[in-house]
Amino acid sequence: MKKEMKLVEDYQKDLTLIGQANALLSWDEETYMPEKGVESRSEQTALLSGIAHDKVISNELFNALRKLRISKDLKGKEKLMVDKLYKDVVKARKVPKEFVKEFSKTVALAGPKWREARRKKDFKIFAPHLQKIVELSKKQIGYNRLPGHPYNSLLDDYEEGMTAEKLKPVFADLKKELVSLLKKIEGSEKYKKQKLVLMKKEFDGKILEGFVYDVCERMGLKKEFSRVDLTEHPFTTKIGVGDVRITTNYRENPMFAFLSTVHEAGHALYELGLPKKDEYNVLGDAPSLGIHESQSRFWENMIARGKPFWKYYYPRFKKNFKLSGDFDEWYKEVNFVHPDKIRVEADEVHYCLHIILRFEIELGLIEGSIKVKDLPKIWNSKMKELFGVVPKDDVEGCLQDVHWSMGSFGYFPTYAIGTIYSAQLYSQLIKEHPHIEEQIGKGKFDKIREWLNENVHKHGSYYLADDIIKKVCGEGLNPKVYVDYLNEKYGKIYGFD
Amino acid sequence: MKKEMKLVEDYQKDLTLIGQANALLSWDEETYMPEKGVESRSEQTALLSGIAHDKVISNELFNALRKLRISKDLKGKEKLMVDKLYKDVVKARKVPKEFVKEFSKTVALAGPKWREARRKKDFKIFAPHLQKIVELSKKQIGYNRLPGHPYNSLLDDYEEGMTAEKLKPVFADLKKELVSLLKKIEGSEKYKKQKLVLMKKEFDGKILEGFVYDVCERMGLKKEFSRVDLTEHPFTTKIGVGDVRITTNYRENPMFAFLSTVHEAGHALYELGLPKKDEYNVLGDAPSLGIHESQSRFWENMIARGKPFWKYYYPRFKKNFKLSGDFDEWYKEVNFVHPDKIRVEADEVHYCLHIILRFEIELGLIEGSIKVKDLPKIWNSKMKELFGVVPKDDVEGCLQDVHWSMGSFGYFPTYAIGTIYSAQLYSQLIKEHPHIEEQIGKGKFDKIREWLNENVHKHGSYYLADDIIKKVCGEGLNPKVYVDYLNEKYGKIYGFD
Repeated sequence: MKKEMKLVEDYQKDLTLIGQANALLSWDEETYMPEKGVESRSEQTALLSGIAHDKVISNELFNALRKLRISKDLKGKEKLMVDKLYKDVVKARKVPKEFVKEFSKTVALAGPKWREARRKKDFKIFAPHLQKIVELSKKQIGYNRLPGHPYNSLLDDYEEGMTAEKLKPVFADLKKELVSLLKKIEGSEKYKKQKLVLMKKEFDGKILEGFVYDVCERMGLKKEFSRVDLTEHPFTTKIGVGDVRITTNYRENPMFAFLSTVHEAGHALYELGLPKKDEYNVLGDAPSLGIHESQSRFWENMIARGKPFWKYYYPRFKKNFKLSGDFDEWYKEVNFVHPDKIRVEADEVHYCLHIILRFEIELGLIEGSIKVKDLPKIWNSKMKELFGVVPKDDVEGCLQDVHWSMGSFGYFPTYAIGTIYSAQLYSQLIKEHPHIEEQIGKGKFDKIREWLNENVHKHGSYYLADDIIKKVCGEGLNPKVYVDYLNEKYGKIYGFD
Repeated sequence: MKKEMKLVEDYQKDLTLIGQANALLSWDEETYMPEKGVESRSEQTALLSGIAHDKVISNELFNALRKLRISKDLKGKEKLMVDKLYKDVVKARKVPKEFVKEFSKTVALAGPKWREARRKKDFKIFAPHLQKIVELSKKQIGYNRLPGHPYNSLLDDYEEGMTAEKLKPVFADLKKELVSLLKKIEGSEKYKKQKLVLMKKEFDGKILEGFVYDVCERMGLKKEFSRVDLTEHPFTTKIGVGDVRITTNYRENPMFAFLSTVHEAGHALYELGLPKKDEYNVLGDAPSLGIHESQSRFWENMIARGKPFWKYYYPRFKKNFKLSGDFDEWYKEVNFVHPDKIRVEADEVHYCLHIILRFEIELGLIEGSIKVKDLPKIWNSKMKELFGVVPKDDVEGCLQDVHWSMGSFGYFPTYAIGTIYSAQLYSQLIKEHPHIEEQIGKGKFDKIREWLNENVHKHGSYYLADDIIKKVCGEGLNPKVYVDYLNEKYGKIYGFD
């Protein structure tokens, strides 16, 4: 079996390296590529993706995996790796090559149309493309149908082991709790009088950039193996074992760049913390997007929207930006609850409602109970129901996210899953290290990074996401921990605890 | 034959795209990659190069080409393309895969050792690696032995059709003429009293950068399809059809960044001017490095070291940098002749002597008459003979260029070939457009770019380099035109014409 194992390892290494080369092509497209480079770029990425796909579905790899799986010698790590890769390979082999091509082509056409629809504030431009994507997604489900709801096949691509059946009660519960918390917040005196004052000041771009670099450095994301560039939408990308890059964007609210950097840095630390010994096999990847998001949300919400964090940073912000407010005012503005129509700018309380809205719509589109053409209407009525506000146009409504144009149905729930996980992780961290907030208050995050590394990062894909959380916290996905955290925090801020 | 032609075209397209992806990996390595990314990067480029090599030597491609070559239907462009590609394929197939691997590995190890040797100013660190590269280069010659001098096989990789037999008399002649011109210059009163004054001023970096962008824009290298970044050594790289990037470097002499940008922009305009219809086949490439260099040298020497060019730019430099010298002083300092030990900083008169020195040493290394261990001694004695100066260490001597560490023997002569061609092209341009210098004096270069495009760029590889020059200038490589140009220009500057 040595020969087969070597072959399987070589294949995984090639696939990893091609993926990294493709990651650089995408990173460059978003950061530095001259505009006329776009045509060649799409040909380059299509070719590399095609080469990778051919490798995944090759008979040589498939036969080696089959031989390995029936062999009795295979144990421990090797067995895990072979089983995991085999699952991916079988899945990929069930999708006809013609479908893969049609899907890529559809998505490649949909992207520019989504952007045009946004520019012209006209959903109709995007609608026929989204219609096609929905149809193809349904077709895709048929190739690898999982038990239960048809949505499960899509969700499993991003969150292995998760199902609509498991998520529905979790989200229903969460929705109820969030709506109830929002009622309390909105009914408070403080809410009625609230307004942003400090955040409306002019924040010097250079100084803000300095803080962006400072917080990366303190979190342990060093320049030797990372960098921060500017893109329209912030993201994290792994270009190599010692090369994980993040991007940021400076918007009207100064917190956007700072907190989104902390968020992306959380993703990046995870990528850098994955097991080095598995850098070129499937066990060296994150097991799901949800757990990936738990890392970014952990740093963004649990750390960088927290009191201890600002104990350290606010005096420095105050001095450098010449702010005249006191700590409590600042802390309240960082955690300003208001029904923002844009998901990526949402506060902690509203954030998961954005996700639940999308989850319900995705289920409807896949079940056929929601028609693409009715999307703006349905979106707006759900916004009205959950947020009490209606988008002024589809750009701040159903055209705001890129995911659907990329054909990524089943992706959104991972944001809420990660958010819930992040609260569970923080609660466990506090139990194990009751004095950790003193460290945070000094701007020292090494212990936290090490704890996350030890408890999450280093496991790679040796376990499913929910099993990692179980190992650390004693239980899997549990929205109650998140709801308790929100109730306690916002009860104090809005004065009804 | 339709099926075979389609296959051949598909292969070329894939090879072009993989080459472009690899070009981006290299560009990123030199510009923005975090330092710890280097290991993954070398694995990524090795993999893509390997995939490309497998395609080049594949039996499928070879058999299709053979069928096409014996077919009678093949004419015109298709025949040219098939013949050219067949030549490359046959060449590549003669080199054993084991050798390709050994060569790559040797070169990958030699690079860091060359850099270490430079850092420690100790040639001995690099010597054993260079020794190995020389041995492998000799072995390489054996796989594709061309008639005549063994060096021809190496040279042909960079300058198809050129031979040591043709080059030796050209370079002997050139050497004699340059040495004689230098005697006249060095004997002049002006030379004895010369010193840099204006160039020693402080040149504001931001303003200089502004001029760098301005000259690119005026040459026609627009931001839509290009960009300028910083690297240790300036270079040009084609990342895609509408994406050709250059780099620059700001050194002590302010002219370095400005002129090297003009030089690289010349390369970039050539790449952008190559026939679009052949973007994905071998006819869409430059036929040789010499003709590529003719484009960069044309813009750098014939245009940007010329009087008309500075008629436009000097008043602007003078005003912006607050210079107090007059035009003649400036023009003389731009064309300051002195025996610089560094090739890339050499003036026009010394430049080709640098190349001739390297050519003679390469011949000696390949013939076996020069031993690697004696390189510093031989280098220094040749410097003494040709330049009258001796490098203070090997960093400004035989360790100054990266080429040998990359295994690129046969590359250097193309710099002199391109320099000679550039003078031939300019002389022809003036004949055809006697008033073009008035345009240059106004900072207008569109006509020149169009002329180069029409006479050189658009031919791609439809002709050999020397045949393109023959078509434009009525004769192939002729150093006399370059020597005449130098004699006239420097006779005027140093006052002995």
